[in-house]
Amino acid sequence: MSGGTIDSFAQRIRSSEGGLISAWIGIPDPLFVNHLAQEAFDAVVLDMQHGVWDLGSAAVGIGQGRLAGKPVLARIPVGDFAAASRLLDAGASGIIAPMINSASDAVAFAKATKYPPVGERSWGPTLALNHTGLPAAEYLTTANDATVAIAMIETRAALDAADEIMRVDGIDGIFVGPSDLSIALSQGATVAPDTPEVDGVLKHLVARCRAHNKFACVFGSNGERAGELLKMGFDFVIAGADTQQLRSGAASAIAAARRIHASS
Amino acid sequence: MSGGTIDSFAQRIRSSEGGLISAWIGIPDPLFVNHLAQEAFDAVVLDMQHGVWDLGSAAVGIGQGRLAGKPVLARIPVGDFAAASRLLDAGASGIIAPMINSASDAVAFAKATKYPPVGERSWGPTLALNHTGLPAAEYLTTANDATVAIAMIETRAALDAADEIMRVDGIDGIFVGPSDLSIALSQGATVAPDTPEVDGVLKHLVARCRAHNKFACVFGSNGERAGELLKMGFDFVIAGADTQQLRSGAASAIAAARRIHASS
Amino acid sequence: MSGGTIDSFAQRIRSSEGGLISAWIGIPDPLFVNHLAQEAFDAVVLDMQHGVWDLGSAAVGIGQGRLAGKPVLARIPVGDFAAASRLLDAGASGIIAPMINSASDAVAFAKATKYPPVGERSWGPTLALNHTGLPAAEYLTTANDATVAIAMIETRAALDAADEIMRVDGIDGIFVGPSDLSIALSQGATVAPDTPEVDGVLKHLVARCRAHNKFACVFGSNGERAGELLKMGFDFVIAGADTQQLRSGAASAIAAARRIHASS
Amino acid sequence: MSGGTIDSFAQRIRSSEGGLISAWIGIPDPLFVNHLAQEAFDAVVLDMQHGVWDLGSAAVGIGQGRLAGKPVLARIPVGDFAAASRLLDAGASGIIAPMINSASDAVAFAKATKYPPVGERSWGPTLALNHTGLPAAEYLTTANDATVAIAMIETRAALDAADEIMRVDGIDGIFVGPSDLSIALSQGATVAPDTPEVDGVLKHLVARCRAHNKFACVFGSNGERAGELLKMGFDFVIAGADTQQLRSGAASAIAAARRIHASS
Amino acid sequence: MSGGTIDSFAQRIRSSEGGLISAWIGIPDPLFVNHLAQEAFDAVVLDMQHGVWDLGSAAVGIGQGRLAGKPVLARIPVGDFAAASRLLDAGASGIIAPMINSASDAVAFAKATKYPPVGERSWGPTLALNHTGLPAAEYLTTANDATVAIAMIETRAALDAADEIMRVDGIDGIFVGPSDLSIALSQGATVAPDTPEVDGVLKHLVARCRAHNKFACVFGSNGERAGELLKMGFDFVIAGADTQQLRSGAASAIAAARRIHASS
Amino acid sequence: MSGGTIDSFAQRIRSSEGGLISAWIGIPDPLFVNHLAQEAFDAVVLDMQHGVWDLGSAAVGIGQGRLAGKPVLARIPVGDFAAASRLLDAGASGIIAPMINSASDAVAFAKATKYPPVGERSWGPTLALNHTGLPAAEYLTTANDATVAIAMIETRAALDAADEIMRVDGIDGIFVGPSDLSIALSQGATVAPDTPEVDGVLKHLVARCRAHNKFACVFGSNGERAGELLKMGFDFVIAGADTQQLRSGAASAIAAARRIHASS
Ligand SMILES: [Mg+2]
Ligand SMILES: [Mg+2]
Ligand SMILES: [Mg+2]
Ligand SMILES: [Mg+2]
Ligand SMILES: [Mg+2]
Ligand SMILES: [Mg+2]
Repeated sequence: MSGGTIDSFAQRIRSSEGGLISAWIGIPDPLFVNHLAQEAFDAVVLDMQHGVWDLGSAAVGIGQGRLAGKPVLARIPVGDFAAASRLLDAGASGIIAPMINSASDAVAFAKATKYPPVGERSWGPTLALNHTGLPAAEYLTTANDATVAIAMIETRAALDAADEIMRVDGIDGIFVGPSDLSIALSQGATVAPDTPEVDGVLKHLVARCRAHNKFACVFGSNGERAGELLKMGFDFVIAGADTQQLRSGAASAIAAARRIHASS
Repeated sequence: MSGGTIDSFAQRIRSSEGGLISAWIGIPDPLFVNHLAQEAFDAVVLDMQHGVWDLGSAAVGIGQGRLAGKPVLARIPVGDFAAASRLLDAGASGIIAPMINSASDAVAFAKATKYPPVGERSWGPTLALNHTGLPAAEYLTTANDATVAIAMIETRAALDAADEIMRVDGIDGIFVGPSDLSIALSQGATVAPDTPEVDGVLKHLVARCRAHNKFACVFGSNGERAGELLKMGFDFVIAGADTQQLRSGAASAIAAARRIHASS
Repeated sequence: MSGGTIDSFAQRIRSSEGGLISAWIGIPDPLFVNHLAQEAFDAVVLDMQHGVWDLGSAAVGIGQGRLAGKPVLARIPVGDFAAASRLLDAGASGIIAPMINSASDAVAFAKATKYPPVGERSWGPTLALNHTGLPAAEYLTTANDATVAIAMIETRAALDAADEIMRVDGIDGIFVGPSDLSIALSQGATVAPDTPEVDGVLKHLVARCRAHNKFACVFGSNGERAGELLKMGFDFVIAGADTQQLRSGAASAIAAARRIHASS
Repeated sequence: MSGGTIDSFAQRIRSSEGGLISAWIGIPDPLFVNHLAQEAFDAVVLDMQHGVWDLGSAAVGIGQGRLAGKPVLARIPVGDFAAASRLLDAGASGIIAPMINSASDAVAFAKATKYPPVGERSWGPTLALNHTGLPAAEYLTTANDATVAIAMIETRAALDAADEIMRVDGIDGIFVGPSDLSIALSQGATVAPDTPEVDGVLKHLVARCRAHNKFACVFGSNGERAGELLKMGFDFVIAGADTQQLRSGAASAIAAARRIHASS
Repeated sequence: MSGGTIDSFAQRIRSSEGGLISAWIGIPDPLFVNHLAQEAFDAVVLDMQHGVWDLGSAAVGIGQGRLAGKPVLARIPVGDFAAASRLLDAGASGIIAPMINSASDAVAFAKATKYPPVGERSWGPTLALNHTGLPAAEYLTTANDATVAIAMIETRAALDAADEIMRVDGIDGIFVGPSDLSIALSQGATVAPDTPEVDGVLKHLVARCRAHNKFACVFGSNGERAGELLKMGFDFVIAGADTQQLRSGAASAIAAARRIHASS
Repeated sequence: MSGGTIDSFAQRIRSSEGGLISAWIGIPDPLFVNHLAQEAFDAVVLDMQHGVWDLGSAAVGIGQGRLAGKPVLARIPVGDFAAASRLLDAGASGIIAPMINSASDAVAFAKATKYPPVGERSWGPTLALNHTGLPAAEYLTTANDATVAIAMIETRAALDAADEIMRVDGIDGIFVGPSDLSIALSQGATVAPDTPEVDGVLKHLVARCRAHNKFACVFGSNGERAGELLKMGFDFVIAGADTQQLRSGAASAIAAARRIHASS
């Protein structure tokens, strides 16, 4: 996949062609990104909220994902909008912001990720210019479209404000966090992201996205769940985190070895 | 698994109880070790030859494996016996040395991994004392037994010298590298670690280990192969490298998502 | 000390058994943590405010402290509550937040460190699940109790608001910073943490903690001062920072060498 | 240049002697700082906003710059005032804060960079004490003068509030960002830092600095532009970023080689 | 430049088309590689002998160079042939080995860099497979041609053994180190890489390369010297190290600024 | 201490003024070096054999020691003479090589640390030129004197070969390792560095140094032992490793706190 294809990711996710599946990586190692990005993912997300990336490792990790031909997005820590700008400078194709609970949260997020007149993203995309090969003038006027700002909806407040959040100029789509949502809905009693109650909320949010002409993303606990979420209409899904995929691959290998050994 | 259990690993692998399965990690990230070591592996190997570990990351990675209750071994780069000593100082439970092609290679390896009178390992196990909780005097007199030096047999020269290598004082066991062996046997024509020709060599080497009262280890490409290798009598096997397990877990997740999505 | 013992730290500090002494580490090296944690400390604090830790090194450092059998807490930079959540995800046993000057500061802090319904800590404790061995459901419902959120009182505003801060749901205890307090009290004229004036404030704050059934922590410049602070009733004290202990150990060694050399 | 000379930088920049030229480094490598600081710069700025420094690398990078005899300043990410305090603790000679768009932004910035009674900078300058050699009491009472807090003016809002910003106690000078300013002035249409329109604003801001007795800094795209900016009256200018200087040096070398080769 | 173009580098340098100019980088930062590789270099060399790269940073740096479309070679520390294998595994397009002073040095070098039957390079090119996109079987049988092993000639002993070194199977070309050569020729009296005496040796070595059908590489102190060396017939030249290009770019910028400022 | 004073260290240690005490650091953190170097040490040694430094961290650590005004030496891993050259390039004032057991070991060591005609150290001291401020021509002709190569005597073979080792051109002094020596003398039975038997050997070696006009260095377990060793005539002693000093400082602080607390 050439730089051109990587940099058309924003167009793909906005096109509602659907069916996008992304890797999700919390282990802060650039080479890990390169290895995982060899598989048939449409994109890679580096998780700085619950994962252990920092800006420096993420900047190099973005490069390793692009080297493998994949667009790389990043989820920032709660409220760290300065990191959002820095990650775009480093060549991220999009930013996922957790805990966007109100329109004013969304405005602050868009301010950091979009150049004027939409926002106040500050100029300095040195690595992004290297990676995209664009001249500065063209990068400035295309970056707002060529990268995506994705607001996470994962609390009761966010559900209440979902329409307002989607109306904020510069917010390109939403990303639903079903685990936090299930904790919020149960008042802290359970973490249960895959229940009918949560599904009802997910379907509602997909419908609201269609109404607002925004795309919808969601975290799926594993491959099967990801498939169900695609069927619900989500445009972009996660099919389990890195550790889930790593450990399930390892568990399968151990089980196979034990089974064959025991068959002797 | 307590420190005591970790530190009885050498006794386990020497006991010929067999059936040990280890993780194999080339990605140089300590947290990756912690995650993978949660699965039902008997040990973890950090690969410094074809993986990207250096001494500093490995020292911390050994700690993360021990924190997860697992003994951690390391494979050193070809001929880097100084690293062997340093990794033992950092708390490694054993060292795997690639390309031990002669008795003199084996002697040099044992010299670096065993204290006098067997070898000339130099004193300074600061982290190992922390991790094992042993007083210095006891560590000195027990470390030669409590850690293992494992010589890789993976060339024609090594096959010819296998008996001599096993006779070297301080060499505790061997580790066969079937990929390099297959390249050697085919004079560079193919990398084919799982053929009947290679199996013949593997069985021969297991028999020689039994004759010399040494343990036998081997790299298996995946879980199924690992099971077959255990059935051949190997004491300690690899069930695929980290990247193989990671990518197979990811590929399964993607396939499941695509299948379910397509079923709509 | 097993994981179980580490994870009972919150219960110990809340129990008012008193007498807890912790290491305090600003040098951002995980192995340094392992070495210092060998000494008879009850806990270790990693200082991200005036020390040089970042999230990635702290995540590994927490592991090294736990490997040495000690609970590890972290002090976050001023106002960086996103880091508080991330450190708990990495297995920290508690968070110390500097410059909590009002009830609203305390609420923001508790929001990041406690799951609903107390706060809005977001779900994703991958490393903490590894370290504690708890299933997700149990971690969710016990984490608010099993980890502690500690508010620093170190300005005039904080003194005025101390009762309100202690009343905030989710704040488990306070930590007094006597150096900043002395600067505040002197309007910037002196840094003098060990004066009778400061002692008066410290005693007042211990009394207020007793009244609110919260525990009280404090920074002591050295071992002697730490002993005095324990006598004042503090539950948890620092006996000098890492650099103070390192340099005093070195100074003693140099002095001994010079003295004996001169005696020739 | 001795530590004394480094630590008199604040006095130099305040003295209006003018003509100061600084390096500007976004590449997060301490040795890079050491190499670039060999050239005849008056200071070095580490850019954490559009560059890839984090706190840990910057702390070491500040040391490498000081080792080369140069005062080191840092530009923080937007709104990350906690980093400002930490960088001063690590020995930075000044902090440049981007996007100071109002007096309240400036107050928050000064609060983090100045000790009481001007601000609320928290005590803990361990590395700064090492580097300056000052006793704690003296550091406390001189640091507000010996280090500088520099507010960036680079939006329309900031232009409107410039006088108010300069009036905030603790703000020592301003730094104009002509690229962001040009984007703001053109409503996102162009990045054109070196136009007559921008020059008009720059001259106005220099004049306002003179009126408020503050110093004025500015980013120049290259050496020629830096010379023009010095002529406009700026006290401290950048003569192109690190990558610009690196790449122009490399381009010249390649061109010379090609030219001479072609002349054969 | 696509992966295909990167991976045809070996063919280009062997083709005697001549005129290749490479960057030379000792600063161990992957992003620095990305920036410098934007300029019109034909390749990038990471220097592990006199530069500060280690295996881990180099593995990521190779990726950043490839991301910028450039083949990346590495110079290893003296005698560290294990590193040569590891760098090829990480995707290096060639290895430069310093201080190859005899045919037996050359044999040891070729053994580590070429698969059987030429050498004994061990199997495990995980990253190289990712980067080239080749299946394992094809990588095995093409890697000896697709990567280059380059022996440095830079001592009197090496000059005497030059013909024998070039005859060693697996040595693809030579790289002359004029500084060390000048020190050797002067018995330690001077470092003078650009003298007529050195030129005489250089021309002799180019002629010997032609006779042996090997390619010839050389370090040039700056762009002008690189042009002269290309005219002498060298196939691949360095036009100054990274620090030289960086500092000359910075010095020019400072000089321009001072000149224009003084012209007021 | 200015750069000039740092760079006169070789002259001081050769002058037989005696009484030099050095820090000894295995924790691979540059800031740790800066803190410890504040104490009244004459020098700092970074231990790469039993400590966890690698080349990159050591290069930065050398800078932090020099920044604190102290010459920094490094102990290399066994036989890693390539590292010796690289550390001198980075500004080390001397190299300590462990396990120099024969004249041929010593020759290989001198070859890597001394420029022609004494050895074959390769040219490329970029950081050393920065740090010393010397022009290249002067550095070349003075470096052999201005830095020291120190051979460790710590086995029976080394004791037998001690005179021959001291006669090797380029070996400036010796460093005795009493722990390894005691293990060697006891055939692995005990580690007992401070016995009369060891003292006898130490005195013998000091006498042989005097006879050969070389300086003598030794590791002392703590300050008291260091004083005794200075009295024996050693020129340069260690007064306990970093971890010993750190932990003794911490243990004292804890003890003081417990004592005072208990006195209530
Ligand atoms: Mg969430
Ligand atoms: Mg192999
Ligand atoms: Mg404080
Ligand atoms: Mg700006
Ligand atoms: Mg050379
Ligand atoms: Mg020793």
